[in-house]
Amino acid sequence: MLNEFTAFMPAKIHFGAGAINKLKTEKLPGKKALVVISAGTSMRKFGYLDKLTGILGEVGIPYELYDKILPNPIKEHVMEGAALAKKTGCDMVVALGGGSTIDSGKAIAVMATNPGDYWDYISGGTGKGEPVPNKPLPVIAITTTAGTGTEADPWTVITNGEEKIGFGYEGTFPTISIVDPELMTSVPKNMTAYQGFDALFHSTEGFIASIANPLSEAMSIKAIELIGKWLPVAVNEPDNIEAREYVAYANTIAGFVETYSCCTSEHSIAHAISGIYPKVPHGAALISISVSYYEAFLGHIDDLLAKMAQALGVNISGMSESEAAKSFIDALKELKVKCGVDKLCLTDFGVDPNKAEYIAQNAYDTMGGLFDLDRKQLSMEETTDIIKKAM
Amino acid sequence: MLNEFTAFMPAKIHFGAGAINKLKTEKLPGKKALVVISAGTSMRKFGYLDKLTGILGEVGIPYELYDKILPNPIKEHVMEGAALAKKTGCDMVVALGGGSTIDSGKAIAVMATNPGDYWDYISGGTGKGEPVPNKPLPVIAITTTAGTGTEADPWTVITNGEEKIGFGYEGTFPTISIVDPELMTSVPKNMTAYQGFDALFHSTEGFIASIANPLSEAMSIKAIELIGKWLPVAVNEPDNIEAREYVAYANTIAGFVETYSCCTSEHSIAHAISGIYPKVPHGAALISISVSYYEAFLGHIDDLLAKMAQALGVNISGMSESEAAKSFIDALKELKVKCGVDKLCLTDFGVDPNKAEYIAQNAYDTMGGLFDLDRKQLSMEETTDIIKKAM
Repeated sequence: MLNEFTAFMPAKIHFGAGAINKLKTEKLPGKKALVVISAGTSMRKFGYLDKLTGILGEVGIPYELYDKILPNPIKEHVMEGAALAKKTGCDMVVALGGGSTIDSGKAIAVMATNPGDYWDYISGGTGKGEPVPNKPLPVIAITTTAGTGTEADPWTVITNGEEKIGFGYEGTFPTISIVDPELMTSVPKNMTAYQGFDALFHSTEGFIASIANPLSEAMSIKAIELIGKWLPVAVNEPDNIEAREYVAYANTIAGFVETYSCCTSEHSIAHAISGIYPKVPHGAALISISVSYYEAFLGHIDDLLAKMAQALGVNISGMSESEAAKSFIDALKELKVKCGVDKLCLTDFGVDPNKAEYIAQNAYDTMGGLFDLDRKQLSMEETTDIIKKAM
Repeated sequence: MLNEFTAFMPAKIHFGAGAINKLKTEKLPGKKALVVISAGTSMRKFGYLDKLTGILGEVGIPYELYDKILPNPIKEHVMEGAALAKKTGCDMVVALGGGSTIDSGKAIAVMATNPGDYWDYISGGTGKGEPVPNKPLPVIAITTTAGTGTEADPWTVITNGEEKIGFGYEGTFPTISIVDPELMTSVPKNMTAYQGFDALFHSTEGFIASIANPLSEAMSIKAIELIGKWLPVAVNEPDNIEAREYVAYANTIAGFVETYSCCTSEHSIAHAISGIYPKVPHGAALISISVSYYEAFLGHIDDLLAKMAQALGVNISGMSESEAAKSFIDALKELKVKCGVDKLCLTDFGVDPNKAEYIAQNAYDTMGGLFDLDRKQLSMEETTDIIKKAM
């Protein structure tokens, strides 16, 4: 029997070069916007903020701006953004940026209509896991990176102290998402790679997760194929709009995978790393642990690893299943080389090599649930070993 | 550049054996239901209607029953069902059955809240193509067949005189859909084949349509794979619940394809056949024209036909692209043999062989728009020839 499964992804996603202009004709879900952007300079420098506020002006939507979001976004900014929305009477959130900004926008939307502290609603770590009493504000997500898939999933990942924890439910899907590859050509080479590998691992984890289903499998394989083929092009030719388009599509498809299936413990471990060491970009954490992570599954899910190898372009005909599974590891290493991230390791970002067990414990404490979705249970020792090998 | 594309499929789909029981816990979108079923005996005979009304009773939802829907459903029943919903104060539609019932449920939901005649809102034929002024009633779709994918798309196809025309927009998606393979084991052998091929052609047409995109492509390929592998099993072993599950999944995935991409002229032609000859089951019309239809595209979209051949299990390595494309036609013929429908032709159902051109003209007049989505434009002569070969 197949897994029981509920498919629900109600966001309306406009995809394509120039898609941001759809906001001119789409019925917007509010009358005053809290525009959320990062603390970085890109949104202003590349004219994306002006483009957005120009459109809001054109359709007669006033807005307030909240511009403090960090790459690994923190709870304090969620609470501050929500307070601003409340104070100024914003009835929708428009998040313009990468995953950290859009995730923050979703969390702000929750706290703009709900009492207490954001961590009251978080499960895992010191979170209280309470149900969200009120419907969050509607969110418009305009993604300027191809990494998190957050435009097509309900998830938001926020850090509180050393706890970096994902949260989401039916109320936290964006109402409208814009995936416009023209807003992505300015992403620098290393970030393009980090984000692209994040999308890759959403797809691979969703494929090997025990709750995978035919719908998520179809999307995983497509996203893996597209990333394998186009990510090296996007990394090495930043202005190649075709490559940006395919990677953006892959990322959005990987977002569907996160909704229809789920990430596995690879993401718990990566979030623990960035939770403790916020300077480690999420994608870099994933890339660093990835080879040792998938090696830990060799001999357990070889049929699935073989299919993913094929999706990365390996011709597995004539190989035994275990050889084909190993060829996925080789293909992953090769993709890292092509994207210039094969030398990456956690110590590059100041991670203390002696902290591997501490990080592993944090992964179990904060997002331990994802370990339950692995088809082979990782012991504390195995998880620690995966992290050690990433140093 | 890739096609611009909007992905929007807001229905919440509960999938799995026993999924109908989800209605006990799901927040339903209304307080009184118009239950719509077909004029046939299956829904009562197999206990499905009792199961549904038992659940409605358990959750305190009163209902009215409308039980007249025909296999090729007609406008008169849409208007009658809508009048009953209005008269009895129903504020949601619960459609239990195959595609004809669920399509009728959607159309009834439109006319229960809107003035005039259903054909006022239809584009094509004698339809007036007016916009729908009011939001339709919410629809719960419980599918007891694996054929139309209507649970995952906005489309409803209704016949008015000799015009059989599809209609749908953002307001006609089901709110909740139930795909429960346990409700499908009673479908007889020939209908299982007809419906399964309908799902196949939703996938293949969506794959070769000019508006296909990576998201729809991923789903097309998966649905084609599953149907190629499992439809012969479901046809020949009706109680094989695993086969029913996979075919049901394939059908729902094909519904996503209809939403994210679109059918092509194969469906226009098939609808014209059943519009003029209502005794021709929709799937039988498709099966009859399919070989000559896809042959008409040989030499024009060989790359796409080759990929579909692969999805049907053909090992195309070593073949030229044109050989691989032809192998799709062979694989299609073989699948028809395996499902016992290789001898099927339109004259079996009383279609007049001299009416081929008349049918072709009807296809252009009623749903001519789909011809525009073909990657090679079919002339009137070619379309007529496709129909003649199906006699």
